[in-house]
Amino acid sequence: MKRTLGTCYYPEHWPESQWSEDAALMKASGLTWVRIGEFSWSKVEPTQGKLAWRWLDDAIDVLGKAGLKVVLGTPTATPPIWMVHKWPDMLAVDEMGNPRKFGSRRHYCFSHEGYRTESERIARLFGERYGSHPYVAAWQIDNEYSCHDTTVSYSVAARQGFQRWLEQKYLKISTLNQAWGNVFWSMEYTAFSDIDLPNLTVTEANPSHRLDFSRYSSDQVVGYNRVQVDVLRQFTQAPLIHNYMGRITDFDHYKVGADLDIASWDSYPLGFLEDRSEEGDAWKERFSKQGDPDFQAFHHDLYRTVGKGRWWIMEQQPGPVNWAPFNPAPLPGMVRLWSWEAFAHGAEAVCYFRWRQAPFAQEQMHTGLLKPNSQPARGLHEASQVSAELESLPEVGTFASKIALVFDYESDWAWRIQPQGQSFSYFSIVLDFYRGLRRLGQSVDIISPDTADLDSYQVVLIPGLMTLSDTLQQQLATFKGTILAGPRTASKDTHFATSSLGAQYAGFAASLEFVQSLRPNSLITLPAGGAFHKWHETYSHDTAGVVETDSMGVPALICQDNIWYLAGWPDAVAMDRLLTMALDNEGLSHQNMPVGLRVRDTETHQFLFNYDKDPVTFDGQEIEPAGVVWKRK
Amino acid sequence: MKRTLGTCYYPEHWPESQWSEDAALMKASGLTWVRIGEFSWSKVEPTQGKLAWRWLDDAIDVLGKAGLKVVLGTPTATPPIWMVHKWPDMLAVDEMGNPRKFGSRRHYCFSHEGYRTESERIARLFGERYGSHPYVAAWQIDNEYSCHDTTVSYSVAARQGFQRWLEQKYLKISTLNQAWGNVFWSMEYTAFSDIDLPNLTVTEANPSHRLDFSRYSSDQVVGYNRVQVDVLRQFTQAPLIHNYMGRITDFDHYKVGADLDIASWDSYPLGFLEDRSEEGDAWKERFSKQGDPDFQAFHHDLYRTVGKGRWWIMEQQPGPVNWAPFNPAPLPGMVRLWSWEAFAHGAEAVCYFRWRQAPFAQEQMHTGLLKPNSQPARGLHEASQVSAELESLPEVGTFASKIALVFDYESDWAWRIQPQGQSFSYFSIVLDFYRGLRRLGQSVDIISPDTADLDSYQVVLIPGLMTLSDTLQQQLATFKGTILAGPRTASKDTHFATSSLGAQYAGFAASLEFVQSLRPNSLITLPAGGAFHKWHETYSHDTAGVVETDSMGVPALICQDNIWYLAGWPDAVAMDRLLTMALDNEGLSHQNMPVGLRVRDTETHQFLFNYDKDPVTFDGQEIEPAGVVWKRK
Amino acid sequence: MKRTLGTCYYPEHWPESQWSEDAALMKASGLTWVRIGEFSWSKVEPTQGKLAWRWLDDAIDVLGKAGLKVVLGTPTATPPIWMVHKWPDMLAVDEMGNPRKFGSRRHYCFSHEGYRTESERIARLFGERYGSHPYVAAWQIDNEYSCHDTTVSYSVAARQGFQRWLEQKYLKISTLNQAWGNVFWSMEYTAFSDIDLPNLTVTEANPSHRLDFSRYSSDQVVGYNRVQVDVLRQFTQAPLIHNYMGRITDFDHYKVGADLDIASWDSYPLGFLEDRSEEGDAWKERFSKQGDPDFQAFHHDLYRTVGKGRWWIMEQQPGPVNWAPFNPAPLPGMVRLWSWEAFAHGAEAVCYFRWRQAPFAQEQMHTGLLKPNSQPARGLHEASQVSAELESLPEVGTFASKIALVFDYESDWAWRIQPQGQSFSYFSIVLDFYRGLRRLGQSVDIISPDTADLDSYQVVLIPGLMTLSDTLQQQLATFKGTILAGPRTASKDTHFATSSLGAQYAGFAASLEFVQSLRPNSLITLPAGGAFHKWHETYSHDTAGVVETDSMGVPALICQDNIWYLAGWPDAVAMDRLLTMALDNEGLSHQNMPVGLRVRDTETHQFLFNYDKDPVTFDGQEIEPAGVVWKRK
Repeated sequence: MKRTLGTCYYPEHWPESQWSEDAALMKASGLTWVRIGEFSWSKVEPTQGKLAWRWLDDAIDVLGKAGLKVVLGTPTATPPIWMVHKWPDMLAVDEMGNPRKFGSRRHYCFSHEGYRTESERIARLFGERYGSHPYVAAWQIDNEYSCHDTTVSYSVAARQGFQRWLEQKYLKISTLNQAWGNVFWSMEYTAFSDIDLPNLTVTEANPSHRLDFSRYSSDQVVGYNRVQVDVLRQFTQAPLIHNYMGRITDFDHYKVGADLDIASWDSYPLGFLEDRSEEGDAWKERFSKQGDPDFQAFHHDLYRTVGKGRWWIMEQQPGPVNWAPFNPAPLPGMVRLWSWEAFAHGAEAVCYFRWRQAPFAQEQMHTGLLKPNSQPARGLHEASQVSAELESLPEVGTFASKIALVFDYESDWAWRIQPQGQSFSYFSIVLDFYRGLRRLGQSVDIISPDTADLDSYQVVLIPGLMTLSDTLQQQLATFKGTILAGPRTASKDTHFATSSLGAQYAGFAASLEFVQSLRPNSLITLPAGGAFHKWHETYSHDTAGVVETDSMGVPALICQDNIWYLAGWPDAVAMDRLLTMALDNEGLSHQNMPVGLRVRDTETHQFLFNYDKDPVTFDGQEIEPAGVVWKRK
Repeated sequence: MKRTLGTCYYPEHWPESQWSEDAALMKASGLTWVRIGEFSWSKVEPTQGKLAWRWLDDAIDVLGKAGLKVVLGTPTATPPIWMVHKWPDMLAVDEMGNPRKFGSRRHYCFSHEGYRTESERIARLFGERYGSHPYVAAWQIDNEYSCHDTTVSYSVAARQGFQRWLEQKYLKISTLNQAWGNVFWSMEYTAFSDIDLPNLTVTEANPSHRLDFSRYSSDQVVGYNRVQVDVLRQFTQAPLIHNYMGRITDFDHYKVGADLDIASWDSYPLGFLEDRSEEGDAWKERFSKQGDPDFQAFHHDLYRTVGKGRWWIMEQQPGPVNWAPFNPAPLPGMVRLWSWEAFAHGAEAVCYFRWRQAPFAQEQMHTGLLKPNSQPARGLHEASQVSAELESLPEVGTFASKIALVFDYESDWAWRIQPQGQSFSYFSIVLDFYRGLRRLGQSVDIISPDTADLDSYQVVLIPGLMTLSDTLQQQLATFKGTILAGPRTASKDTHFATSSLGAQYAGFAASLEFVQSLRPNSLITLPAGGAFHKWHETYSHDTAGVVETDSMGVPALICQDNIWYLAGWPDAVAMDRLLTMALDNEGLSHQNMPVGLRVRDTETHQFLFNYDKDPVTFDGQEIEPAGVVWKRK
Repeated sequence: MKRTLGTCYYPEHWPESQWSEDAALMKASGLTWVRIGEFSWSKVEPTQGKLAWRWLDDAIDVLGKAGLKVVLGTPTATPPIWMVHKWPDMLAVDEMGNPRKFGSRRHYCFSHEGYRTESERIARLFGERYGSHPYVAAWQIDNEYSCHDTTVSYSVAARQGFQRWLEQKYLKISTLNQAWGNVFWSMEYTAFSDIDLPNLTVTEANPSHRLDFSRYSSDQVVGYNRVQVDVLRQFTQAPLIHNYMGRITDFDHYKVGADLDIASWDSYPLGFLEDRSEEGDAWKERFSKQGDPDFQAFHHDLYRTVGKGRWWIMEQQPGPVNWAPFNPAPLPGMVRLWSWEAFAHGAEAVCYFRWRQAPFAQEQMHTGLLKPNSQPARGLHEASQVSAELESLPEVGTFASKIALVFDYESDWAWRIQPQGQSFSYFSIVLDFYRGLRRLGQSVDIISPDTADLDSYQVVLIPGLMTLSDTLQQQLATFKGTILAGPRTASKDTHFATSSLGAQYAGFAASLEFVQSLRPNSLITLPAGGAFHKWHETYSHDTAGVVETDSMGVPALICQDNIWYLAGWPDAVAMDRLLTMALDNEGLSHQNMPVGLRVRDTETHQFLFNYDKDPVTFDGQEIEPAGVVWKRK
């Protein structure tokens, strides 16, 4: 397979006279793909039912004739103003009960049937016209589901939909009352129509209520997406893609991904570091112009699974962006590094957002490959370098990792609903395990908790996984390698009730006394090295299979056959030590990476990436900041 | 009197088959009391008017027959969903104008007449059925008034009720305009029906308006409670109790307490430290697993007065809780220590919340005396130890303190309305004086500003008391001991207007120049030791009776007969020094306690409590962390 | 011209019997002016149409006869309750959509036509009655426009007014769509009636939309003020004044000022430092009792221009205030210092707020010249000292500065809408340049970007100016002195689209690569001294006219003829160095001032002000804290 580059283009933003020149320069710069159309509804259908296709016909024609492949987006993330007039209640409603107004984007409620029908209609019109167009080589459905906190809506439509969804799930209200434990605080309902959305309650709503609302909300995204998938499939053979946004977990990406052909995500390393990282200021200062050395890689590995092996970067940061609290410029070379890290993780394509910086509207301070005056920006030079390097390098393949780390969207909802301590974040604990593995030079697979086959792995990690599905229990039961579980793994049943399992899920003779969350500077020291922080589970002294205890003699690591259970959240020192033990247990090699240096294996090559702002020496080789080095294995 | 233990139990949460086993274990563990029923409305009356008493009859029967005494709660903190359907406007309304939805608890507005009638009805039904039941030995009315910020509601009912309340108080609108100073900013009203609630104003509302609304809101709690008191009194001789929540001051507990027989409060030392303490991080880290060494004691002494001498702990933290920002486990021994500190302050009973940890709904991460799987948790062992120790120790009596510290709910409302500096908190300044007295080994009484008799005291402290009532003025006028007043004492009249009194309230020849609030690190040094911080009052140099000046020569301590007036908020060094002077003045003995060690006198014994995480040596004796030591005096 | 003092007085707050005594003491204390009436509507018109003039007639009479000149305020900042009953939709609406209730002040929406008519009516009534009154020597219209965030309202009236305003501006909706770039995200409107206010959108609204709404909102203030100006002009020859509030930039003060005769502002140095300064804690601690040494001076110079040369302090802080997070007392002498600094900058009058401290309502903790008990407060002594000094000192004139610093309200709106980095504040960057000039001993003019004549200046500074107006471009084109521009100057066109100009606005051969915002501790070092922080623009290496580069060799200062362009936001070291270069370039003398010491030239004298809390030695002379020294030049 040939790895390719692309860009995001808005022909409707520029005079038609400029299109052919743009297309020619894209091609000359080594780009293959051009994504268009995903915000174009008001240009395609300026008033309801009055279609204006000519400009889009022409744009596709110009781009295609220049030798580019078009990714065509359905424009449903930006319904025009006439749509809001037609369906005033299609607007999403925020947690305080206010409709979220027209005037930016993503102002629709996923539960609104009218808007769903309109979305099917416009997707059908796009499909009819371009489904078999020779230049349209792929489709993007909608844009960045959930961005700007748009999965959840507290609208009337959502309330009614939620009631129907609950009725289908539980059939009888008494079953729901039992499942949620509504006897607590006299919260028992007499009918499904009693049930309100869990916002604006006096104190926290029932966590089971909230979790079901999270599931309902996620299902609306899945259902909404499927409507467009189903209609486009009638007209096209081209692959269907959605561009997920980084660090967004409000809906189950695996389920949306199951209906699509390729996963893609929008990678903004510097924006994410400032806006969405849970690390402290020292970390942010160190990586302010390079991005977090593990954050993108984690998403690459996640979306490889979401895409069932096929994935892209649909939007790659090309320079300073506009939306983070601070928007510095990447170090020279970082755009190339980010691109190569994606390819090393198996990306089929990397598209830069956007071709030319817009001089108007919300994102005018977001750089592009071209400056507003059409001169090339730094990102274009780096993209061209990547293009040339891709030409010279043979296909590297995707590495078959022996290590699987489970990431589960429901667990993320669950622990946001009930963190039990301010420091507990599911995303963060999974990322901590991922970071530990990267510090040891590992190339990792991120997998779903419903993965049907673990045979290819030697180590499986399931930190913080709320519930063990039947599938995963069966998988683990026959798994021959090392399983690293805990803390908090399998501590709830599917209704969010405390599970009777706890660390006993695999037959452990372990008696959990209590769990506790810890203040930031409160550590539970491990004599073997490092400490637990943030979260701790106290098992009784008579627990069987204790491999390691803390400084108070309380079990820290418990082992039963091939299952290891951790009783706390390890800090970096403990993490590296424990992961090393697990790798050694399976005879997997490892190496300690310098801070900021990261490795990724492919089938044929090993890539090194220096995320640090200073040069790093590794294996006798000095690697400059933003340096990328590869060698055949 | 025999001091006793108890627990909080929810028979409706568990199969009936488990009740007798639970009851037997409670009894065997040394418990006397079992509180039930306070959240059971939907189980007792699943739909309106359809009563389902059988389960509750049986539960009381099982518990009583096992030898336990039942505290029966009226279930009015959790009106069922059908109630909200019947009275949609019974929901409290938040400051932004949004109704606070069904789905947790305490979702009623105290001003709503319909709900008040319903509460009387259910209390009557409970009273009729169980008022003379041999096993029902006490009653709890409602649950934790004001928890989750529920005293104040901005509903239509509250607005109308407030207007009536104002009309009854002022009779003529011109009187109100005069009292509030509404000539300022043309806020004059033409009729009582003009007056809105003081939320959502452009800038701060008139403080007199706000204070009257605080009083109105408090009065609604008092009136609401009295409705249930009055109806229950018709059916029972058993004592009536309410369980107040710690660090809640939105209504006047003295006034609610006046209608009841026993005060009780819910003591969660670790939750309060993380969630409700105004101390800094160093303090919270030091006491993270023990709780603040003075916070519980302060409440014990407060509720002894609220209960007119009779008080309980209705809910005692038994292990980690679920609701604070961080929820660590208590040090081993702390549950025992907390229990003993309550008894040393005169508690009649200490009940642990809750019997068995619930595996479902909002509080599933809140530990109990039993784990969810019915195995005993650490708290049960400590409770049993306390039970055994109670058996072995003779009745210790309650200490007759010579020191009274006034705590006033209205002052708390007043200084929250008008802190004048971010650091000014009435609760905090009173607690600071209390801490100082505890650091000097004192056992203190907290008293109401309406206390009718001060004869038994030698020192009375009234820091920050907004207004001197006529009663207190008369009391102080004939008081023979030392009065320590200031800062900010008597600085307002009852309408929240600046008083002409200031430090002159007792005839001081003191001329107040101005008051100022200070930045956190801004100190006014006292050459005699320590400093003022947060708050300072500048008296003129010609003030009479100056005992001490600050480093600029400004009066710091003024004395007039037996009244001492402090011109600022003393830091810990100044506080200890000044309190020592006051104690010495009355010939009261004192001793400097090590950090974390606290003493409490009873009639016959002295108790020592080590709240520190390290051992402490005192009077030649080493006391371990969480250690409790008592000796006959 | 004789410089004079005054005070703010509320006869309606005090018994009539006290008025003459007050008036006599004002006169005896050396005061000339007394401002009254601006919150008196409910006293003048207690119910609609029923006028009660007698008390106001009498008050003016008493004051005038005592030899005082009255400034009479129109009472429109405080519409009475009957007005709200008559026009319920006159209330401003907050960003969340909630009406801002009656119960404080400024509760009107500037867009409401009904209230505008009522305002004209009451102004007419005032004008008719007092327009030619011999004792009414000046008028104040309304009070502190925009205080409490009241320029912007999200009411129905505002929405409708905004639509009309847009239609008048753009005529065709397609023109607006083009100007705003609404093709982006399909935000194209089909009619002006489509356009909503830019609150509550899903993510940020279009910045062009927001900027036009800022302009519209500002224009409503201008138009509202003009209604009162026009009606008062029919009845009076006395000067018309408005009292602007410090650090408020939500409307264009130049435009309001253009319709008035004198500008005045309300100067609360300590309140502003705590509440409105963007400096850090160390700075606030150092100047906590003196106020920021440049903040007031900046406003003095600004309002001298807003007032076209004529300006006052209408409200001068006389002691501790009540509204800041902390409200310390000024150092002894500071009230005198603040007064003199105002006169040195050209103030015609300084009036102290307020005469007697009110013992009731919202501002009862705000000190006055008298204490509530009518004894003189410290401020009165200092005011009398200033009065005596004014008598002894000849008229000093206003300095003709050679240095002009442009301050532009639109730029402030623009960069608040699109800061691109949390640290970017237009006010702050302009103040930083002003501070730098003050540290070099300069006396500066603040000018509007529409200034029609720059001939009298040798240095003009235009940091961060969003757009160059045609007027300013023409002015700069013929300007002979040194122009210091950048960063971010001229980077937008008037529709808030990225300008093609950038640093090229004056024909620079400079190629902007990208701009970036920086984390707080992220510096770009300048080898010549100091660094850039917060904001940086990267120009290409082939840029012409590079005078200085940063440590990476990137252009830092670019020069083209007499225009210097700075590529970043200089820290204090770089600022002083760069400003020194600019002054030297024009042969202007300068001197390095000690921290806290400031100088201001008048025509005949030079004044020194010590804002530091310690004595400062300068030119061999020791100046005490709060010291003021003047000498003939």
